[in-house]
Amino acid sequence: MTSTKYDVLGIGNAIFDVLVQTDEAFLATHGMTKGGMALIDEARALAVYQAMGPATEMSGGSAANTIVGIASLGARAAYVGKVKSDKIGELYTHDIRAAGVAFDTAPASSGPATGCSYILVTPDGERTMNTYLGAAQELTPADIDEAAVAASSIVYLEGYLWDPKSAKEAFVKASTIAHGAGRQVALTLSDAFCVDRYRDEFVQLMRDGTVDLIFANESELHSLYQTADTDTALGQLRKDVKLGVVTRSEKGCMVASKDGVIEVPAFPIDRLVDTTGAGDLFAAGFLFGLVRGADHKTCGKLAALAAAEVIQHIGARPQVSLKDLAQKSGLPV
Amino acid sequence: MTSTKYDVLGIGNAIFDVLVQTDEAFLATHGMTKGGMALIDEARALAVYQAMGPATEMSGGSAANTIVGIASLGARAAYVGKVKSDKIGELYTHDIRAAGVAFDTAPASSGPATGCSYILVTPDGERTMNTYLGAAQELTPADIDEAAVAASSIVYLEGYLWDPKSAKEAFVKASTIAHGAGRQVALTLSDAFCVDRYRDEFVQLMRDGTVDLIFANESELHSLYQTADTDTALGQLRKDVKLGVVTRSEKGCMVASKDGVIEVPAFPIDRLVDTTGAGDLFAAGFLFGLVRGADHKTCGKLAALAAAEVIQHIGARPQVSLKDLAQKSGLPV
Repeated sequence: MTSTKYDVLGIGNAIFDVLVQTDEAFLATHGMTKGGMALIDEARALAVYQAMGPATEMSGGSAANTIVGIASLGARAAYVGKVKSDKIGELYTHDIRAAGVAFDTAPASSGPATGCSYILVTPDGERTMNTYLGAAQELTPADIDEAAVAASSIVYLEGYLWDPKSAKEAFVKASTIAHGAGRQVALTLSDAFCVDRYRDEFVQLMRDGTVDLIFANESELHSLYQTADTDTALGQLRKDVKLGVVTRSEKGCMVASKDGVIEVPAFPIDRLVDTTGAGDLFAAGFLFGLVRGADHKTCGKLAALAAAEVIQHIGARPQVSLKDLAQKSGLPV
Repeated sequence: MTSTKYDVLGIGNAIFDVLVQTDEAFLATHGMTKGGMALIDEARALAVYQAMGPATEMSGGSAANTIVGIASLGARAAYVGKVKSDKIGELYTHDIRAAGVAFDTAPASSGPATGCSYILVTPDGERTMNTYLGAAQELTPADIDEAAVAASSIVYLEGYLWDPKSAKEAFVKASTIAHGAGRQVALTLSDAFCVDRYRDEFVQLMRDGTVDLIFANESELHSLYQTADTDTALGQLRKDVKLGVVTRSEKGCMVASKDGVIEVPAFPIDRLVDTTGAGDLFAAGFLFGLVRGADHKTCGKLAALAAAEVIQHIGARPQVSLKDLAQKSGLPV
C-alpha cells in the first residue's frame, strides 16, 4: 500500500449551524420531533428562524465536525462538502481550514445559499435540528478528488449524504476509489429518520462491502434492523459489517466485530449543555484511535473523551485542543 | 411629563461579533493592544480573520448588548443602529428583535457590508477587539426617530458613536430631543483609546449637559481626566456630570453623585471565560435599576449581576433570562 496524505477524509453536507437554547414548548408548538433532524425547505427555514430566539452561529455539518475533531486530536484530515460562494460559505471555509483541515471543494457560484441548520437546544441538553440543505445539494461525483481519496487511510461518509440527489453518487465513487487503493470506508448512520428513509440501501452498502465500518446510536441501530432489541440488532450488525460501533449516550458504547462485542463506558462530565455534535465527535475519537493503530477499547475511550468535551458547551465543534485533553487523560495521541 | 413607550432606547454601532479563543502570542504577533478596541479597515479585517482560528459568531455592538440586557431584565427597550441589507444584517436584525427589542432602523441597501468585530479572547478571559465599522458608518440623524426618542425614559449612547462621521450628529440630535421631552441621557465612554481620540468633546458633552449620566471603567476615567489617580478623577467627574458610574472589574463599581461616592462589590463568579460585553451588561443592570426607581446601591447590584452572567461564557449577550437570575438573587425586577 502506498503512503498516505491524510489519515481521514470526510465527505458530508456542509452546514452552518444556527443554535438557540429554547424550551420544550417551542418544539411542540412548531411540531418538531425532539432529538431528530428534519429536512426543511426555504419557507419553513424562514418560519422556524423567525420564531427562534437570539442565536449563536458556528460552522457545523456532521462529517465536518468529525473531521475537525480528528484534526484537533492531531491527525491529518481533509473534508469534502459544498458551500456557496456567499458570506456564510466564507465563514464556513475559514473555520474548517483554521481548524487545520484540508478543504478544497469548489464553492457553488450559483443556486441555493450555503446550507443552514436551525438547532433548538432544550434545557435537558438535547438538540433538535431543522436543516435547510441549500448548496449542500450541489455536491456531485465531480467534487470527489480521486488522488485525495486514494491517499487517505480512512474515508468517512455520513448517511445524511443520501438526502441530496447527487451526493449519493459522490459517496459511491469515493468508496470505490478508496477500496481500489486498499483503504477503509466508514459510514455513520446519522439519524434514525434518515435510516428510516434509506434502510434497504444502507443495509445493502454494508452487505456488498461498500462500507467496512458503521457508526450508529442505539435508535439508529434499532431503526436499521427494525427491532427494539439491541442484542438482536448487534448480532445482525456483526454479520453485515466488519466493525460496528454503537453509541448509547451516558451508557457508553459497544464495539461489535468478529471477535465479539466489547463495551466502553462514557467519559464523566460535569454538566450536559448541548448534545449537538456528540455522535460526530465520538466518531472523531474512534477513527483517530484506528488510524493510530489503537485497540478497540482505546478507540472507544478516545471517542468518549471527544464526545464528552463537545456536549459540555454550545456547538458541535471542540473548544479546546482534543490532543491536550487526551494527553491529560493519559490516552495515546 | 408624558407617558413613555420605552424604558431605554440605545443608539450605537451595530456590529456582528466573530469570536475566537486564542493565546497571548497571537496578539503580540499581530500587534494588537490587549483589552482595547482597534478600528480596522477591510484589508486589515481580512488579514486578521485569515490568521484567526475557528470562530463563533453572534450579534454584538456595545449599546445593542446593553439594550438586549435591559430587555432580558424585563424592561421595554429599543435600539437604533445601522446594518446593511445583507445576510449578516439579517442575522443581526433577527437576534435583537428576538431578544424583545424594538429595532426599526432601515438597513443600508448599498455601501459597505454589515460591521464586524474580530474578537480575540485570551486564556485570562480578556477580549481584544478589531472592529470593521462597515455599514455602521452610515448611521445619520435621519435614523433618529423623534417620537421614539421622546417617548423613552432614558436614551443611552455609546462613545464609539464618535468614530463614524455622521453618527455623532445623530447622537446630538437624540440628546436634544430627549432633553426637550424631559428625559435623561446616558453615555458610556466605551474604551480608553476612544476617550483618547475624543477627550475634549466628551468632557464638553458632560459640562454642557448633553449627557446626564456617564458609565466608564477605571482606565477610561483615567484617560478622560489624564490622571492615574482615581480619587482625583472621581472628584472631577462629580463636578462634570449628575451621575457617574465607574466600573473596576472584580473590585466592583463606584457610583459618584452630588451625594458622594458609594461602592458596590462585584458579583461572585465561578469562572471568568470572556469579558466581552462586561461593561455593556453592567450598564444594562444599572439602567434597568434606574428606570425601576431603585436606589444606586441596588442599581449597582443589578449591574454586577448582569455583568457576572455575561463574563462566564463566550459572547457579549446573556444566555439566560437576567430577570430570572435577578429574582433568584433577591433583586427587584
